[in-house]
Amino acid sequence: MYEDLARRCLDGEVRAVARFISLLEDGNRQAYDAMSAFASTMGRAQTVGITGPPGSGKSTLTDKLIGYFRSQGKKVAVIAVDPSSPFSGGAILGDRLRMQGHAVDPGVYIRSLASRGQLGGLSKATAFALRVLEAAGYDLLIIETVGVGQSEIDIVKVADTVVLVSVPGLGDDIQVIKAGIMEIGDIFVVNKSDRDGADRVVREIRAMLETQAALKRGRSPSAGPDTLASRSAELLHHGQVGAAAPQQTEEIEPEDLPPVMKTIAETGEGVPELGALILTRYENDRQSGALENRRLGSIRAQLRDIAAWQLMDRLADSGANGRLDSLAESVQARNKDIYGAAKELTDALIKGESI
Amino acid sequence: MYEDLARRCLDGEVRAVARFISLLEDGNRQAYDAMSAFASTMGRAQTVGITGPPGSGKSTLTDKLIGYFRSQGKKVAVIAVDPSSPFSGGAILGDRLRMQGHAVDPGVYIRSLASRGQLGGLSKATAFALRVLEAAGYDLLIIETVGVGQSEIDIVKVADTVVLVSVPGLGDDIQVIKAGIMEIGDIFVVNKSDRDGADRVVREIRAMLETQAALKRGRSPSAGPDTLASRSAELLHHGQVGAAAPQQTEEIEPEDLPPVMKTIAETGEGVPELGALILTRYENDRQSGALENRRLGSIRAQLRDIAAWQLMDRLADSGANGRLDSLAESVQARNKDIYGAAKELTDALIKGESI
Repeated sequence: MYEDLARRCLDGEVRAVARFISLLEDGNRQAYDAMSAFASTMGRAQTVGITGPPGSGKSTLTDKLIGYFRSQGKKVAVIAVDPSSPFSGGAILGDRLRMQGHAVDPGVYIRSLASRGQLGGLSKATAFALRVLEAAGYDLLIIETVGVGQSEIDIVKVADTVVLVSVPGLGDDIQVIKAGIMEIGDIFVVNKSDRDGADRVVREIRAMLETQAALKRGRSPSAGPDTLASRSAELLHHGQVGAAAPQQTEEIEPEDLPPVMKTIAETGEGVPELGALILTRYENDRQSGALENRRLGSIRAQLRDIAAWQLMDRLADSGANGRLDSLAESVQARNKDIYGAAKELTDALIKGESI
Repeated sequence: MYEDLARRCLDGEVRAVARFISLLEDGNRQAYDAMSAFASTMGRAQTVGITGPPGSGKSTLTDKLIGYFRSQGKKVAVIAVDPSSPFSGGAILGDRLRMQGHAVDPGVYIRSLASRGQLGGLSKATAFALRVLEAAGYDLLIIETVGVGQSEIDIVKVADTVVLVSVPGLGDDIQVIKAGIMEIGDIFVVNKSDRDGADRVVREIRAMLETQAALKRGRSPSAGPDTLASRSAELLHHGQVGAAAPQQTEEIEPEDLPPVMKTIAETGEGVPELGALILTRYENDRQSGALENRRLGSIRAQLRDIAAWQLMDRLADSGANGRLDSLAESVQARNKDIYGAAKELTDALIKGESI
């Protein structure tokens, strides 16, 4: 049945796609096993992640981008994700898009995914839903998330192109949060750019990107992607304890920085330019080999995540027969520390003991 | 060295506490191993999680609560967490509190934790930092997070008492996000309650709590904590596809609902009442056995999380010698699907093969 469903997805059957994604969302393991049918279509589509704080107009922008990509002959699928809102968020995001008229266009598929409370469950379902949608023949996959927390970052960072949307007038707290995700942005958009303060936001983003570039130049070429974050944390930490922060004296080449664009999604201003940039950057990255490198890194990271999820599933299964309970009771009775107790559990699992 | 550091933490030495928490934040495994020294102090302190959207005045509220708890003779430690902001957020949260004068009080310890980019790394460090702080003799541990995403929920839900702060006038988007975390709240606070719309926010929260209670009554007693989220998601899903949502007809008893309090943190209005409620609820829960049950559930969940982290560490280690790379290349070359490739990895790990 699952293989049949997968085959119908490959034929582009919308109902089968919807069903398959629901099964993934439910954590159905047979559906995950049936994903092997999509090995040959892996990486066929361009994925675009769009995120930014609530109120930045992401849904309207996504709506207008759908229109642009359709005008370029692309089939478009959107996954609207709300990691923080099991109650209503996902539905609201998706509904906003559906209401805007694309529901009747067979070249557009819109789908909401909302959290069902498991750690990592949503980013897992999203990552796999993308594979189903590209198998079904969509050329351009948009992942839209609301909010700017760690879960949102985890979800959009798998995209080929990440668009970070900000907006004038959201106040400092929001801007502080935004700072945390600067590193994953390929294209920065200041939406509602007819509002007061738009140019200031553009300048602030450029300044943050320059700081980031300076930090990057300070790191060794062999350093991994976590380095910038750790270095920033270090700098901050040193700042806190009163030690002198290392000086960054390197020159910054502005042409290396990600572009910062202004849009007014409501009227469509700036949207064709943004859409065109999304497409041309992808094409350039594909031709230069940069895309392949980026995707290999992303596949590697996903492989590790998926393997970890599978191990967690095995742990969840193993909890059924009491070992987990008895260890938890020992910890509560202060006979064991929680870290050591967890180690007993993993050792048993690795050794293949019945637990 | 780690055992010595742990002993000094047990003696309440502040510098040792700071050092130990830094090691946890860095993911130092020897420090985690040395946590066994704290088995006997597990659960000694009351933990309070405070979260809410940016701009809701959490820092000021936390500041005033520290003052209240000090007046009750409690030693207080605060962990200010910003999961979304590796650059600046954690520091800013902590600095705000430090600036408010508690830095000179030896009965108060304030510590910032910021994300260093690993999945789950921050909630892990936070959970263990709490164990160190209670070992060092702090009676009341406050975890403050900015933002309301899944990571924030994961971080504060380990607390004995979860306080959700909202505020009038943040607009609909923010309120939607808040809806996703209603379920974890023990006490609801509408801060800045002298602002227009405060009573409306109180009413909205009560209405959401009533809906939640109605859904809860509809579920079977044996159902786990994820049930409400899944049921809500189901209801939404059914709503989306046009099927009739199940009707909830049960009566709601308002006295079962979590309290909704109004505060003006700036002036301190409502803060002693909130502080007293936090203490008395804990005391009641302790005497009724409800606390023990809740903590056992939380220990069980944490045990599983920690075991999963340990398994992920082993996977990360195993990646060093090429198996992960070659699998990632096979996936990119479309010879293997990513889920199947991950399964090869976990099977090898479980079987103890050298990978």
